[in-house]
Amino acid sequence: MQHIEQYQKPFLKYLEGFIVTKEPKNLYAPINYILELGGKRLRPILTLMTAEVFGETAQKAMDAALSIEVFHNFSLVHDDIMDDAPLRRGQKTVHEKWNLNTGILSGDAMLIMAYQLFENYDSETFQSLAKLFSKTALEVCEGQQYDIDFETRNDVSISEYLKMIEFKTAVLVGAAMQMGAIVAKASEEDQKAIYEFGRLLGIAFQLQDDYLDAFGNPETFGKQVGGDIIENKKTYLHLKTLELGSEEQKKNLMQLMSNESISKDDKVENVKQLFTESGAAEATSQAVKNYTSKAFEVLKGLHIPEDKKQDLKDFGVQLMNRRV
Amino acid sequence: MQHIEQYQKPFLKYLEGFIVTKEPKNLYAPINYILELGGKRLRPILTLMTAEVFGETAQKAMDAALSIEVFHNFSLVHDDIMDDAPLRRGQKTVHEKWNLNTGILSGDAMLIMAYQLFENYDSETFQSLAKLFSKTALEVCEGQQYDIDFETRNDVSISEYLKMIEFKTAVLVGAAMQMGAIVAKASEEDQKAIYEFGRLLGIAFQLQDDYLDAFGNPETFGKQVGGDIIENKKTYLHLKTLELGSEEQKKNLMQLMSNESISKDDKVENVKQLFTESGAAEATSQAVKNYTSKAFEVLKGLHIPEDKKQDLKDFGVQLMNRRV
Repeated sequence: MQHIEQYQKPFLKYLEGFIVTKEPKNLYAPINYILELGGKRLRPILTLMTAEVFGETAQKAMDAALSIEVFHNFSLVHDDIMDDAPLRRGQKTVHEKWNLNTGILSGDAMLIMAYQLFENYDSETFQSLAKLFSKTALEVCEGQQYDIDFETRNDVSISEYLKMIEFKTAVLVGAAMQMGAIVAKASEEDQKAIYEFGRLLGIAFQLQDDYLDAFGNPETFGKQVGGDIIENKKTYLHLKTLELGSEEQKKNLMQLMSNESISKDDKVENVKQLFTESGAAEATSQAVKNYTSKAFEVLKGLHIPEDKKQDLKDFGVQLMNRRV
Repeated sequence: MQHIEQYQKPFLKYLEGFIVTKEPKNLYAPINYILELGGKRLRPILTLMTAEVFGETAQKAMDAALSIEVFHNFSLVHDDIMDDAPLRRGQKTVHEKWNLNTGILSGDAMLIMAYQLFENYDSETFQSLAKLFSKTALEVCEGQQYDIDFETRNDVSISEYLKMIEFKTAVLVGAAMQMGAIVAKASEEDQKAIYEFGRLLGIAFQLQDDYLDAFGNPETFGKQVGGDIIENKKTYLHLKTLELGSEEQKKNLMQLMSNESISKDDKVENVKQLFTESGAAEATSQAVKNYTSKAFEVLKGLHIPEDKKQDLKDFGVQLMNRRV
């Protein structure tokens, strides 16, 4: 099996070729800036890998992969405005480095450019890619809206939360993989299955992100451990504590959330203890395993050689084993 | 010839059917709000009319027409944020009625929905429509960026200004018409010609808008007469005055722009006088005529019956005769 790193290099080279100086500079410079800010490029790599799994070259899938990456970065630029985020990957966000208007307009242009990247495919492939893209992009917007709505709601259910992360994160993973299958002209049935694999893995990945935000190793986890707790985010851990915890544990959690005088470190430690004692930590860990197993289950039905299934499974394991 | 009003009714009915209540409400309610805010719906009507001119039914072009209208409204929502505009057609703008984040996210969703409206066409028509749409949409973004850039520049040339209004306004008129031609499966040559007709008419229309903003009849012109002058906008009238005016006229114009103590009415009157005396008013009026004639010239090459050419010409006259 090819490892993530082996796809990264050719993808980054292709991305490099996409970055050109165009006028008006104030529109295109921010686009180049965010695209060159780094990241693991996991989504486009999934597109390339899936094309290969279905017997097509990764090269043929480059434009589709790049479209996924450009869209992902569009969503980062606009989300960072909505979240009022000053930093992205340790660098200034676009609206901070330039201004609000530049962030809005450059993001708009990126969304359009993502569609343009399908134009080199034949018209049937083009239509399939663009339809999947539109459906997915709209779901990502809906997911973002749910996320915003949830901030001011105190009655978010687990199933609502799962739908939110599915739309905001997981459908794009599914679509990234299905696009590889579309370029490789895989059957509708296989396309649906690989989308489902990606979607389930995407949910598992996001739930693991929730888990690691609290219980990850501070030395290797990319972000500040406990960040979600400090920001009172209603993560899966949080919602599960409200579901499984005793009346006292629930009360303690609510009090810690509104306690303005406690130190950040103490807050993180106390909330983590509640997550563990209530059984929410274990339940989250179990949910990650369940979604991962479900994803692997879907692989069985794919009409591809067994070694290709193993490649996809290895990739899933590789992804989920980041016990950082 | 069918008049604008005769296309309006079926289009508004079709638009009505597009408006449904979807979840999340906070994402879709603003979209319905802006789409129902009114307007003359000139762009989508051009799509319908062009489809008929090339022998197709208006009905077949409804989705393409609606896409143009949804895109146009997307650009209004995001432009209103960038311009910090409180009102649109006498009603609150989306970001004022809701908030900044709703404005950004609802706009994003509309841009995606505009693409989705092509999905019912066959794959070749789909690809043609989507390609033209992407090219046009990106040019509209570029036009908006130039417009923003020009606000803080004092050396904008006439040709730069013309390019800005071409991108920000005229290409969408051209694209609206070409889309009707695409749906009607007109030849590439006719498609290009009808695009050019729309583009030239679009420039004429925008220049006339500049003219009417200063010299229109206050009782019938939709906006406040002199609005551009009060806001020190670098319109065609303004730039032409700097080109044609005497040193003294130019100096007077610059002084009036920075004069904070003069009343709005006096400022408008004095600047209008400079526009007239410098010959800029006449030059603008002439430019409108020139672009309109060029547009009519293009019609001659179209491979359609003479009465259809006359229909398009009548429509152009109808559009440009709003001496309000």
